[in-house]
Amino acid sequence: MQPRLSIVTLGVKDLERSARFYEAVGFEVRRGTSNAVLFQTIGPILALASWEALAEDAHLSPAGDGFRGQRLVSHFHSMVQVREAYDEWIAAGGYSVRPPADRDWGAYTAIVADPDAHLWEFVHNPDQELVRFNMFGQLELS
Amino acid sequence: MQPRLSIVTLGVKDLERSARFYEAVGFEVRRGTSNAVLFQTIGPILALASWEALAEDAHLSPAGDGFRGQRLVSHFHSMVQVREAYDEWIAAGGYSVRPPADRDWGAYTAIVADPDAHLWEFVHNPDQELVRFNMFGQLELS
Repeated sequence: MQPRLSIVTLGVKDLERSARFYEAVGFEVRRGTSNAVLFQTIGPILALASWEALAEDAHLSPAGDGFRGQRLVSHFHSMVQVREAYDEWIAAGGYSVRPPADRDWGAYTAIVADPDAHLWEFVHNPDQELVRFNMFGQLELS
Repeated sequence: MQPRLSIVTLGVKDLERSARFYEAVGFEVRRGTSNAVLFQTIGPILALASWEALAEDAHLSPAGDGFRGQRLVSHFHSMVQVREAYDEWIAAGGYSVRPPADRDWGAYTAIVADPDAHLWEFVHNPDQELVRFNMFGQLELS
């Protein structure tokens, strides 16, 4: 796979509180849904989302040493690239968390874990209303 | 502060094993020290470092629900900007983990936590041998 890191997603207990916190320290809210708030940074997109929803999405307990509150996201240009990346990770000794599949929010995604159980999500999202690739191949908010 | 996200650092139990894993899935090792391996991505730099060392650096237990294995890093152009960012975070309700100070590896850094205890490190590193800002203001490997 191309080494892509497009979004860093942090699990938060109170989306409103955390969005206000990041705004207060200078992050500009660029897009919000009922489930997530996205900020453009000088670097990747920073996403805040429900700790519980992210844990559930990765089939992990939200408490104790289950879910660690964080997921790294790589966006790809096609479903084929998502499947290729997934296969590469499994072949290299990574762990399958969710095999590649269509998700009800419109994207095609897979979730894998590295040898230390750090979560990565591979995404192909044909809908460019929220995010799109810029001329440097980096993901940014539309 | 300017919303910067320049490095995503993952704590790993075995630096050699994890470096091989990320190489196997397509990340190119660009710089390595005895303590860390850095990869350039299409996005921020991905850093792998000792889980135990990162936990100790943040005054957290490496086991259980102490250290979560991850730190986000914002690089700044000056020590003043590091102090300003630190003060902003504390004023906004963030937590001080390490106040701004010179570190023995040559940089000036502070570590703070957001309301969900996600760790951020603010760094001014005058040494541009390892990393430097590119023309877009993004950090990249030298």
